[in-house]
Parts: sequence; C-alpha cells; structure tokens
Amino acid sequence: MVSYRTEVEALMRSIQDLISSGLEQEDGGARFHEDIWEHHSGGGGISRVISHGNVFEKGGVNFSAVEGALPAFLGPHITPGASRFFATGVSIVIHPDSPLLPIIHANVRYFESDKGDRWFGGGIDLTPVYVVDGQAAQFHRTLKAACDTLDESAYQRYKQAADNYFFIPHRKETRGIGGVFYDYLKPGESYSFKQLFQFTQTIGSAFLPAYLPIVQAQKQLAWTPEEKQWQLIRRGRYVEFNLVYDKGTRFGLETGGRIESILMSLPEHASWIYNHQPAPGSKEERSMALFRKDMDWINR
Amino acid sequence: MVSYRTEVEALMRSIQDLISSGLEQEDGGARFHEDIWEHHSGGGGISRVISHGNVFEKGGVNFSAVEGALPAFLGPHITPGASRFFATGVSIVIHPDSPLLPIIHANVRYFESDKGDRWFGGGIDLTPVYVVDGQAAQFHRTLKAACDTLDESAYQRYKQAADNYFFIPHRKETRGIGGVFYDYLKPGESYSFKQLFQFTQTIGSAFLPAYLPIVQAQKQLAWTPEEKQWQLIRRGRYVEFNLVYDKGTRFGLETGGRIESILMSLPEHASWIYNHQPAPGSKEERSMALFRKDMDWINR
Repeated sequence: MVSYRTEVEALMRSIQDLISSGLEQEDGGARFHEDIWEHHSGGGGISRVISHGNVFEKGGVNFSAVEGALPAFLGPHITPGASRFFATGVSIVIHPDSPLLPIIHANVRYFESDKGDRWFGGGIDLTPVYVVDGQAAQFHRTLKAACDTLDESAYQRYKQAADNYFFIPHRKETRGIGGVFYDYLKPGESYSFKQLFQFTQTIGSAFLPAYLPIVQAQKQLAWTPEEKQWQLIRRGRYVEFNLVYDKGTRFGLETGGRIESILMSLPEHASWIYNHQPAPGSKEERSMALFRKDMDWINR
Repeated sequence: MVSYRTEVEALMRSIQDLISSGLEQEDGGARFHEDIWEHHSGGGGISRVISHGNVFEKGGVNFSAVEGALPAFLGPHITPGASRFFATGVSIVIHPDSPLLPIIHANVRYFESDKGDRWFGGGIDLTPVYVVDGQAAQFHRTLKAACDTLDESAYQRYKQAADNYFFIPHRKETRGIGGVFYDYLKPGESYSFKQLFQFTQTIGSAFLPAYLPIVQAQKQLAWTPEEKQWQLIRRGRYVEFNLVYDKGTRFGLETGGRIESILMSLPEHASWIYNHQPAPGSKEERSMALFRKDMDWINR
C-alpha cells in the first residue's frame, strides 16, 4: 500500500511552525515552551505551550504523529482486515487573557490504515466572550475564502457541520460562533489526494488571517472585572463542552494519550456560579442570544 | 404493586433538612437559597444552595423526587414490562473556601418501578486538598460505624466500591480519600426493606459527624496563596471526574435534568495549569501520593 505519511507529516510540522511563530510574534511577550513526547504505541508529538503572555494567558499548538494497532472494533470507515493505523495532525487552542478577545480552536488531521483507508479532517472555530459583529463576519469570510478553494458549496457544508458539532446540548447553545468543521474527506471520492492535501494547507494558512485581525483590533482595550467574571463563566461552558462532548478529548483520555497535551485545551481559570443569568438588556444577554445554529454570520 | 414512595420521600426531605441546617449553622454567615423546580416528566425537587459564606464558598444540598416513563433499554435491574419509574434522593456537594478544608460529596437515593423493582443506593466521600492523617481516619471511622449497623463486612465492601468509583482513570489517581459507595441494594436480597430504609437514615445522619469535626478543626487556620492555587488545581481534577466519569452527572445531562442542580457540584473557581507537578518533597506531593485505591485510612 502506498503511504503518504512522510509528506503529510511534513505538512503538519510546517503548519505547527507557521501558527506558533505567528502567535508568538503577536503576543510579543511570552515564548512557546516545547515538550517532545512519545506515544505508548509508537510515534509521538511536539507540544508547544504558551502561558502568561502579554495577550495569551494559556494556549497550545500541538503536533502529533502516532502509529499503532487498530482496535477490534474498526467502525464504518476502515476496511476489514486492517491492523495498523497512522495518524498525524495539529491541534490548537488559545485562551487569551482579555475577555474582549475570543478563544480560538483549530485542528487539521490525517489518518491512514495499512489497508489503504485514508482521510483528512479538520476545522477552525471561534468562541468569543462578547460577539463583535464585524469581526464575526470577517472571521467567517476568511474561512469561506479557504473553503472556496475546494468548491463553492464547501463553506456551507462545513459551516453547518461546525454548528452541529460545537453545540452544548444540555444548555441548548453553541459553544461560540462556530466556523468550519469537516471529517472523513477521502481521496478519490469528491476530491483527489492532492486537492485534500492542499486544502489542509489552505486551512492551516487561514488560521492567522482569521484570528490575528481580531486580536489586533481588541488587544489594547481595557476591560472591567465584570467582563472578566463573564469570561470565566463562558470558559466554564468551554470546559463542559470539551470534557463532556468533544470526541478528540474523550478519545484521547480513553486511549491513554498524553494527558497534558489533551487537556491543554482547558483554560487556566474557569468559573461556575449557581443559576447565573445575564441581566436583561445587558451585552452578556445580547451575545448569548447569538450562540445558535444556522446564523448567517457573513450577511447579518 | 406496593409503593414505598411516600415514606422514602419523607425520609429524603428530612435528610435534606438535617444536613442543610447543620451546614448553615456551621457556616455562621451565608444562608441556603432555595429553588423549587419541576422535572419535565413529572415530580421535581428542592435545590438549596449556599454561596460566599464564612466557610463554604459554594455548595448545594438538593432533594428530588421524580417520576416518568422508563426508556426502551431497561438494563439488568428492571423487570421486563415495567413502564414507569419513581426516584427520590438527596445529593450534596460542598466546596469550602479554605484550601485546608476538604470538598465533601454525599448522596442517598431510592428507585422503584411499576413492576415492583426497588433498590437503594448512596455514599459519602471526601476530597481533601491536603490529607490530614488523623482527620482521614476519623472520617472513615464514622462511616465504618454507620456501615456496621448493616453488617460487619459492609464497610469494607462499600469502601472498596468507593475506591473503584471515585477514580480518575486518565490520571491514575483517586478523586480524594474515598469513603463509602453502595448501589442496587434490593429489599429481600441480603437485607429487608426496613433495614435498608434505616441504613439510608443512618448514612444521612453520619454526614455531619463525619464532616463537621474536620471543618471545626481547620476553619480558623490561615492559608497561603500557594495553598489556594493548589486547591484550584485539585478542583480542576474534581471537575474532570464529574464531567467525564460521574454517572449521575452524565445521566442528568443526557436525560434533560435541571442543569443548574446537576452542575451545582462544580466549584465556583477551578484551574488547569499545563504540566503542573508538585515540587519534590512538598506537602502537595505527599498528599498526591496518598490518592490511591486500597488505602487503610483507619489504621495507617
């Protein structure tokens, strides 16, 4: 079986470099700390973590390339008889200090089995504490431009998938303003390997242009203790999503992945206050009303 | 079918009253705030929440008595053909402000179906930030005395069940020093209905004697910012356990229970710091080394 692991792994490493250096430059204070680790079943990764920067309180840009034996239950995407897998990807979560800056998450990933199964997945999504309309539109426009390189309907499809995925059922609210999310894109179905490889590169390259303009517009603004408290509560919802629903987190915890890299997605501080309700007419209430599926962020 | 719901519900209400008034008196500052709520399928509950007290930063003593239709999958404990259930219980989580005071959790519950299935469950467990040997022994001795009223081997059995249940597999550590945990105690198997009813009452009555001596011994002690930070990290682990593993939490979230009552168990503030390790020889390290299964807390 042909394996593309070498070139995809190299792509993933370059995406990690691009994004971590761009964020470091934007922060202007803290540097990423690097940890190199090995997975118990083969391969490993490079975790890069930033903390207590000028802008970013806690964040990680993690690369991994792991191989191992496939479990007995293979699922619908894997050819019977496959026994080994290889998976590589980059995973990013950034928690800024200021409540006026959104949390961002992104992920690009590639999987292949020894029976020739292969697919790409990934996405980028934004979790503002307070929604700023123009910035939400700019964020989604940047993602749409990236998706348009694949085809004209890709953005709608992947935007809808993000709405469905980044949803907190017990609260009946989305995690934030969504973004794009795609999975199981298999070379030879709608797109060639080369198209999917390039799309992964395009999504990786869209991260900084989607996020940094928002950071630059907001990072100098002063914020109040009330805004900070609301950020901590919103981060609590983020923790709820990640620990209760996020498939990557749960899969990592269940399969003995490196705990510190998996839980790097959790904020340094989060808060839960019993029965906390935003005041009627407050900007907290106005933002909460927007955390819904099927919002047209570009044209609202 | 005979139903015991009236008498068990009355017992649960009396346990809620006993514990909430005992905690309120100990706090000496804040009062419990009461919310009465209805469940969408029938019945409801009384949530009592304390916050920003002299001693307790956040805590809840919740009573519920809910009825409804049984789901299609009934599980091994329910007679085929049963279509309705009734469940009542009291659930308690207390997060003190001081890092020198342990988090405590307790629960007593009763379930019956319209086919005559019925069982009791419950338990009490303690999560100290720092283990104090004499207090850990006193806590377990109080629980053992309660279990001895059922039979001589009950404490060992339920202590082991608590070790197994209050365990965080991805960190390979127990949540705290455990306690006792029991479930599916069915009248007519090892014990009569009357014995199990009385045992529930005994466990409910053991809560204050198990917890308040520790609170009284520690609540006046001053603590440092380093101890507070370690408490926030330990609370993060508590959040991990509750959102990832706790059956009650996950069942509540999945079946549309009242979110605020379910997530009352989460602390007001929690923290996650990348790759945080207690310093060698520190008291944080010494306590962490004790969060293991099969500790003999009474005789160590």
